[in-house]
Amino acid sequence: MDSNGDLPSILGVHMHINGRSSAPEKVKGRKPRWSVKPSDMANRTYNPIRAIVDSMKMEPNPDKTTITLSIGDPTLSGNLPTDPEIIQALKDALDSGKYNGYAPSIGYLSSREEVASYFRCPEAPLEAKDVILTSGCSQAVELCLAVLANPGQNILAPRPGFSPYRTLAESMGIKIKLYNLLPEKSWEIDLKQLESLIDEKTACLIVNNPSNPCGSVFSKSHLQDILAVAARQCVPIVADEIYGDMVFSDTKFEPIATLSRSVPILCCGGLTKRWLVPGWRLGWILIHDRGDIFGNEIRNGLVKLSQRIMGPCTLVQGALKSILRRTPQEFYHNTLSFLKSSADLCYVALSAIPGLRPVRPSGAMYLMVEIEMEHFPEFENDVEFTERLFVEQSVHCLPAMCFEYPNFFRVVIAVPKVTILEACSRIQEFCEQHYHHAEGIQEECDK
Amino acid sequence: MDSNGDLPSILGVHMHINGRSSAPEKVKGRKPRWSVKPSDMANRTYNPIRAIVDSMKMEPNPDKTTITLSIGDPTLSGNLPTDPEIIQALKDALDSGKYNGYAPSIGYLSSREEVASYFRCPEAPLEAKDVILTSGCSQAVELCLAVLANPGQNILAPRPGFSPYRTLAESMGIKIKLYNLLPEKSWEIDLKQLESLIDEKTACLIVNNPSNPCGSVFSKSHLQDILAVAARQCVPIVADEIYGDMVFSDTKFEPIATLSRSVPILCCGGLTKRWLVPGWRLGWILIHDRGDIFGNEIRNGLVKLSQRIMGPCTLVQGALKSILRRTPQEFYHNTLSFLKSSADLCYVALSAIPGLRPVRPSGAMYLMVEIEMEHFPEFENDVEFTERLFVEQSVHCLPAMCFEYPNFFRVVIAVPKVTILEACSRIQEFCEQHYHHAEGIQEECDK
Ligand SMILES: Cc1ncc(COP(=O)(O)O)c(C=O)c1O
Ligand SMILES: Cc1ncc(COP(=O)(O)O)c(C=O)c1O
Repeated sequence: MDSNGDLPSILGVHMHINGRSSAPEKVKGRKPRWSVKPSDMANRTYNPIRAIVDSMKMEPNPDKTTITLSIGDPTLSGNLPTDPEIIQALKDALDSGKYNGYAPSIGYLSSREEVASYFRCPEAPLEAKDVILTSGCSQAVELCLAVLANPGQNILAPRPGFSPYRTLAESMGIKIKLYNLLPEKSWEIDLKQLESLIDEKTACLIVNNPSNPCGSVFSKSHLQDILAVAARQCVPIVADEIYGDMVFSDTKFEPIATLSRSVPILCCGGLTKRWLVPGWRLGWILIHDRGDIFGNEIRNGLVKLSQRIMGPCTLVQGALKSILRRTPQEFYHNTLSFLKSSADLCYVALSAIPGLRPVRPSGAMYLMVEIEMEHFPEFENDVEFTERLFVEQSVHCLPAMCFEYPNFFRVVIAVPKVTILEACSRIQEFCEQHYHHAEGIQEECDK
Repeated sequence: MDSNGDLPSILGVHMHINGRSSAPEKVKGRKPRWSVKPSDMANRTYNPIRAIVDSMKMEPNPDKTTITLSIGDPTLSGNLPTDPEIIQALKDALDSGKYNGYAPSIGYLSSREEVASYFRCPEAPLEAKDVILTSGCSQAVELCLAVLANPGQNILAPRPGFSPYRTLAESMGIKIKLYNLLPEKSWEIDLKQLESLIDEKTACLIVNNPSNPCGSVFSKSHLQDILAVAARQCVPIVADEIYGDMVFSDTKFEPIATLSRSVPILCCGGLTKRWLVPGWRLGWILIHDRGDIFGNEIRNGLVKLSQRIMGPCTLVQGALKSILRRTPQEFYHNTLSFLKSSADLCYVALSAIPGLRPVRPSGAMYLMVEIEMEHFPEFENDVEFTERLFVEQSVHCLPAMCFEYPNFFRVVIAVPKVTILEACSRIQEFCEQHYHHAEGIQEECDK
């Protein structure tokens, strides 16, 4: 049927479809035999974390309990439960009986209104129409990349950085170019190198602040510098602010959209980290487009793409209003002061270990540690280092190769203090056992 | 960084990336000006229902309350609430505190085990490894198409049929070929025409049973005939059984996988319809591959694709065990006996209306009605017919053009009986007002 609807008798058995009679024909060119292969898209959906972790020898030391500092799930150790108000909000949504049916694919209007009013501010106004609810921040990022970039185009993402950016982009045939974060500058972006990567095929710039895996938080002036590059080169920004507001007391979080006058921004976030419910899969896209550069086209594109899977769980959507309004300030405060003291503890302990150089975080729930590889000549790289750390000490950290940044490893600090202390003391033992003074390396190699 | 990890000093400010110095260069070929356009994928994500419905004149008659028989959401009228056990199961999951963190992207092992044991039978064994949990049946279908088909390949889907098959496929650059369902044969597939559509680029055959929009249910022997075509042509099947078991008392639902010896089948389902919670977004893929034709490759492909958005809401996953074990038989029974009597009522009422020919359904929650267009010369097609029905009678039904099948309209029967009766009597009034005896058409045109 074509859209004119001018088909011959629709009920006739001998309909013609695409000019082809319904009479069975020899199937040309097809040799019927079974051969079912996964699509290119499935093959291209390559997750560096999985690839690296799966290739590691993963037998812990049977004499030591395993300590997992590798998984970015703040609920894992049980020391950071979500707030009772948040649980209650979900129960109320359930009891109301109003949230079992389909919502619009971009989310209920009322829920989008709540998100808009939670995040709006004079510098970055927001209305319900600027909000799209998604299945976690992951789907928010997926939709943003899917609407902005075509296969063959490229996007810019941080190194070290969250590896699913690459997974998502490459699965869609979009190229990824990595810009550098500089550890000696608290993981600020190397802006010159960033700008040098931009070409006519650059579809967007991903800015992840606060950062996974660095735990770093950009200053206002650095964000302004980033925006200046984007403005000069006319590159829209996809801001991943899933750790938004998760910064320690001495730091201020600036939503990048509040600083942008012209650069259009799709800001991704969700309940996952700050509200400590990653499994609930409630994310959002905030559309900031005060210069009307995205216009209706990008908005409509996002709406259309959201229809593919029909939005996030309605119960969580129904609970959003109470979650955003009634979660007590102490809940946020307690989480952050816990994370800060955890970070401090971990930083101090690791700083004392020969051969390691932790970088002090100011937010999120991670800490990156440089391995002075010249002092660990037994290990070829961070993958081997962390693998052996696991085998000998049963402490599991991700090698930063997972974030495309060798010679570091990442520590998740959202675990109880005793765990951090125990982990750090085992890491210390490990390092002391394997540390070689620089001048000793040659001898070692001669053995 | 390439995967060898053999970068020059990772901390040096002048890293080389892709053989390019970090020193800023003129950006070649890029004229910085704003031009942000939605991707081809977004543009190709075309939903016929939206396109048709949005183009209709949608002002109801202000003197009559609106009756919506157009939306496939069984919860819409409130007469079909979900079961209290299902609500309780979710509360228990919430109270346990165990389901707030991340689950594996394909779902908790325990939840997948429950789904496997619910659906397994001697003819179609299933284990947890054969189950992938998804964000609704929509995402289940999306993943199946994404793993099986490459851009440029084609898939076979029913006409009339659920339009998102087209939306999903075309958004991924996959072509769709429509095979015919025959109303005069209770919407069985025109198998010869189906087979004639298969070519060397055919990646899979979608079989939707029970059917949206037809409400039809395939017999065992018809399913065997379909499987014979698939076996002969070596085409894997994507079975959309979201209405599985939703068949009326005089009909038996046969899961297609129970009849297949060699043809590999990805069977999509979910809680949406039978458990009456479409908003909860819990779907699944059941992998039936007794001939080991999909092998590990397709399974791994599905796992990798599921990692893009990290699975469905964990609370619903946590509730699955109780939902599948404790929902009382009367709940299913009551829903179905309600739907059957609704279908009967609607069928009888519409059969009495001059110019309409309803097709009796045997399952799901829909009924298709043929419009004898020759008796309604005022209306060019089903879109105009349903548009005018809405404008004059405030009864909203979807023109079957939305399902790529002109001259029919679809009625959703999951509404209270009084609503059905009122709707049918208004449809009757409408038809009587516009009905022309065949011999009168010419005169009418002469006026
Ligand atoms: C930077 C970053 N973005 C996005 C996500 C994904 O968030 P969600 O679980 O809401 O999909 C994560 C999760 O770890 C993250 O670290
Ligand atoms: C045939 C068919 N498949 C799939 C779906 C989508 O189901 P879900 O809401 O679980 O994504 C529907 C919904 O109406 C349907 O009718």
